[in-house]
Order: sequence, then C-alpha cells, then structure tokens
Amino acid sequence: MIIDCHGHYTTEPKDLHRFRKDQTEAVKNKTPLPPRAGLKMSDDEIRASIEGAQLKFQRERGTDLTIFSPRASGMGHHIGDFAVSQEWTQICNDLIHRVCALFPKNFIGVCQLPQTQGESPSSSIKELERCVKELGFVGCNLNPDPSGGYFNAPPLTDKWWYPFYEKLVELDVPAMIHVSGCCNPAQHTTGSYYLNADTMAVMQLILSDLFKQFPKLKLIIPHGGGAVPYHWGRFRGIALDNKRPELAEIMGNNIFFDTCVYHQPGIDLLTKVVPVDNILFASEMVGAVKGVDPKTGFNFDDTRRYVDATPNLSAADRQKVFEGNAMKVYPRLKAQIQRQAGNA
Amino acid sequence: MIIDCHGHYTTEPKDLHRFRKDQTEAVKNKTPLPPRAGLKMSDDEIRASIEGAQLKFQRERGTDLTIFSPRASGMGHHIGDFAVSQEWTQICNDLIHRVCALFPKNFIGVCQLPQTQGESPSSSIKELERCVKELGFVGCNLNPDPSGGYFNAPPLTDKWWYPFYEKLVELDVPAMIHVSGCCNPAQHTTGSYYLNADTMAVMQLILSDLFKQFPKLKLIIPHGGGAVPYHWGRFRGIALDNKRPELAEIMGNNIFFDTCVYHQPGIDLLTKVVPVDNILFASEMVGAVKGVDPKTGFNFDDTRRYVDATPNLSAADRQKVFEGNAMKVYPRLKAQIQRQAGNA
Repeated sequence: MIIDCHGHYTTEPKDLHRFRKDQTEAVKNKTPLPPRAGLKMSDDEIRASIEGAQLKFQRERGTDLTIFSPRASGMGHHIGDFAVSQEWTQICNDLIHRVCALFPKNFIGVCQLPQTQGESPSSSIKELERCVKELGFVGCNLNPDPSGGYFNAPPLTDKWWYPFYEKLVELDVPAMIHVSGCCNPAQHTTGSYYLNADTMAVMQLILSDLFKQFPKLKLIIPHGGGAVPYHWGRFRGIALDNKRPELAEIMGNNIFFDTCVYHQPGIDLLTKVVPVDNILFASEMVGAVKGVDPKTGFNFDDTRRYVDATPNLSAADRQKVFEGNAMKVYPRLKAQIQRQAGNA
Repeated sequence: MIIDCHGHYTTEPKDLHRFRKDQTEAVKNKTPLPPRAGLKMSDDEIRASIEGAQLKFQRERGTDLTIFSPRASGMGHHIGDFAVSQEWTQICNDLIHRVCALFPKNFIGVCQLPQTQGESPSSSIKELERCVKELGFVGCNLNPDPSGGYFNAPPLTDKWWYPFYEKLVELDVPAMIHVSGCCNPAQHTTGSYYLNADTMAVMQLILSDLFKQFPKLKLIIPHGGGAVPYHWGRFRGIALDNKRPELAEIMGNNIFFDTCVYHQPGIDLLTKVVPVDNILFASEMVGAVKGVDPKTGFNFDDTRRYVDATPNLSAADRQKVFEGNAMKVYPRLKAQIQRQAGNA
C-alpha cells in the first residue's frame, strides 16, 4: 500500500471560493458576513473535482491513499477574528469529510485549525476534537505563523502551544507543521515561505526539550524538512555545538520529514542523510508545482518516481517510507482505513 | 589559488564588543553614545586574533585568500538610527581594513553597510564608495531584512533598492545577500534565519526581471543558496509554471551560490544541480559551526574537503569553483590582489 501523507483539496467547488471572497471582503469592510447556508456545493461537483485531479493522479502514479486536508494556502489565519477563522475552518473540514465519504478508500482526512493571529492555540482544541472524534480525521495541520509571513508567533517550543500539544497526545494524532498563504510581499507562498517555515520549525525543535515534556508528540515537517537535509552538517554541527545529541536521536519518534522534494538528487540526499524511520512518502499534489518537468517528461510532483528510483532505499526501507512509517505516525490511520473500507 | 569568498571577522578584539555593548545600551536608554576615540584595539591584538583562527585555518586547510567582512550577525541594522548604524559600520569596516593591511596576502575586504530599518538603501552608498575607493574593498554584504528577523523590507526586486544597485554596477562590485543577527525568537540566527533569507532572496529573483534592468549586477547567495539546490525541482517547476526560463538561465552571470554547506552529500547535491559557473568556494569560517564532525574527525566548516572529494567536478570545474569564478564575480579582485601583494 502506498500512502501519500500530504495532499490538499486544491480543486474545490467554485462556490467555496465565492464564499471565502465574500467573507474576506466582509471582514475588510466590516459588513455582515455571508451566510454559510448560502454555500452550494453538490456531491457531483465534488466528485468531478476529485476524479479529474487527485484521484486521476493516484491511479496514474499507482498510489493508494492520500491523507487529505484543505488547501493550505487557503487557511488564511491572518484574516479576521476567531469567529471568522472558525466558520471558515469548519466549512473546509466538512468539505474534506464529504470527499472522504465519497471516496472512502482513497482519502482520509486531516483538519485545518481555526487559528487566529495573536489568539491562543487552545482555541483550536474544540475543532480538533470534532474532526477527530466525529469526522474520523487522523491528524491536523498546525500553522506556526498565523500572521501569514512575518514569523511573529512564539516558537513551537514555547508553552503557548502546550495545551494544544496535550490534546494532540490525548487524541493520539500528529500535527503537520504547515503555514498558510503568505501576505508578506518579501516571501513567496509555495517557493520560499513554506520552506522557511519548515526550516524555522526544525531549528526550534533541535535546541529544545519539547519532546521530554511530550514524548508521544509527533510532528511532521513537510516539503522534505525545508532546508534541513541539504544543510544536515550545519544543523548537526549547531546541535553538537549546543551539547545536543545527533539529529537522528533528536528526531527519534517525534519528528518526521515528508518526501515533497521534486527532483531525483533531492530525494537521494533526503534518503541518504535522514533516518529511514523518519521519512514519510508524500507528493503535496495537486499543489505547489503543477507542471511537467521537460527534462523527465513527468510531473515535478510525481515523487513516487524519485522514491522508487533512489539507490539509497532497500525494499524494506521503501515499505517503511510508503506505508509502515505512516501507520506509526498516524496511530488512528489503520482503524480509520478499515472503518472507511466498511463504508465503501 | 584557493579563494574563500565568505569569511567573517568573528574573533574581534574585546574592546570592539565593549564599544558595541555601550552603544546599544546608549540607544536603548537614550543616553550619550560612547566616543569612538575610546576604542582600544592594537595591531598586536588584531594580529593574534587572526593568527590563532582564520589564518591558522587557511594554512591547515590549504586555502590562500579569504574575502573578509565584519561579523555578519554583528551588523545589527535593527539597532538605533542611521547615525548609530553608520558609526558602527565605519568602525567595523576600518577594522577589516586593518586586518587586510596586516595580512595583505591573506585577506581582502568586503564591507558591511550602514543599513537601517525603514531607511532607503541609498543611505548606504557613501560608505560603499568609501570602502571600495579608499579602502580597496571588492564587494559588500547587503542585508535584505534590516528588521532582524521579520522579513518586512521590500523584496530585493523592488525599486526601493535600485539606487544602490546602480552604484554597485558603477563601482563594479558584487553584493553578498546576507542578513544579520536575528532578534525574532522564532528564528535562530545561523540555523534557520540565514538560510531562510537566502531562500527568500533567490525566490524573489527567480520571478523578477531585475537583471534585465541591471544586466551587470552580481548577487552572491551564501550558505549554498539556502534551500534552493535541495529543492531545485520545486524552484525549476515554479519558474516554468510562471513562464520563466530554466533556473540555470536565470542565474546566468548574475546569481552565484557559495559552498558553505557542511557535509559531503550537500556539496555533492550543490555541484550536481547548480551550474559550475555559478558556484564560489567558501567556508564561512570562523562562523556558524565551530565544532569538529565526530563522524569525519574534521571541522564541519572545512568545506575544501567536500569540494575536493565530490565526484561531480572535473579538475577544470574545481579551478572555477576555487578561483576562476571568484575572479569573474569580483571584478576588482585581481588588481587588489596585486596591489596588496605589492604591500606585503
């Protein structure tokens, strides 16, 4: 089984975009918010949007299951207050739930959180519980920078985040550390901002004792761990200079990188330096890069090809990256697969 | 000849730190600034500080010349107003000039700029001219984020920077894009912040026509180009999705990455994906990582070993990386080497 742990619903029905635009405008102009009941998204529309994209790519690329969450750049935690963020988040999560109900063998949900700039992460606990307990989701995307590009939230190792981590541990679900769309003109959302947030997060974790406090907390760093594998020597060196252990030990059962790295030399590097137990297969499709690599003739984000081709993984290693590690990192995944198979 | 294009004076005389501390405190408390005349730094002290570190490492590692600038994390462009930044910058640059005068065969200067948060980069032109014309410096370090960690300056492709670029072109000197110390608790100065600034800068350049405007402008992205080589496919894909050319073409004679990547797989990746004409040898010593890699027995920042060992470079390629490219990127370098040799 090949599990893609990082997919976003980026082909949403048009009316979702209309609603969000209305909501954002209403926030800006301080006019009444659009009614949720006005949203028109039929099952047929959702089905078509998935069949023509994510499901098509699953079939073409020979992957089986995508751990699926709302469009990351759309979370927009810098827009409006908590009530706005919560309504938008519930709508997006409910939509993921509908996708999972329509394609129970192909998609399992991960939720967006109603984070809000300056607001305690505790306020996201209720929606996390709803998604895990009522909708059968197996994880969440936690935004380390709700400002949308200025990196002014407390580090992930700050007690600010602890109540939320306690709930993650209690529910036995991991968080993928994933920022949203960038409103800072100096950073490009999918180019520099996503990767910078990843690198920032790993560096925070390297120098902290967070996992002594939360030994069961599991954090996934997307986009191949940002810049960290390429600069593995730099980060190892900084860790050792600071009397911290080797990175492999720091990552342990707590930090995982995905394989959203869009060329063969990058995947070769990742699989050479990062322990195989800490790598999760992912493609981020349909997402950051939509095009075909003219040098290979295949989509840049067809990461299965790179993982299949790398000389650094044995068959047993590959099984871990494609399936085994995901089962470990998402403890609710196995039961949810069975539950959804029963619904198929 | 092996030219290390990225070295900082990080072993400065004690009184420099005393002065800066006094200056920073005075800014904070709005009390009188310390007098520059009070600074006590003897030639003997400077000589000893270099002989025991940068010069020792040059000899041990078999490199010949370091393009040398003030401690990057010490530039502190977020501290005080322009007058404060200017005084501090002049002191730091004069100190580099003294090092170059004491060791004319081993060090050639690159200057810090008196940038100030919110202040136009034009205000740095005068100090750049002084350093190039009077002190014989061959380049500068340009800070893309004078806020010290919040990335809130206009992108490097904004007209905000143009008057400064015009002066760079007129003087025929390149700029290394290099942030300073981070005052944002979410980012670690040498771990995440430096790399994030590099990645941010490259992404800005990829989507712009800056070099059509300034065909002779040369920008060096340190720390191996941040996350870019590891995510070469992602950046290529984003460029192509945006109807931009291949990255190799975009880099052309304008963008260069250094080799401050502290492990063999990282240098192997860099030299595999980035055109050899766009790679400059550098170590960043004595800088971000001071320790010895327990797995190799050598300093993490002894990057010559990785460049020597990589299978991706021919002898001719290696000559470019070690010397030829630097001569091209720093047009004033050759004459300055000869000038300083005459003084030796």
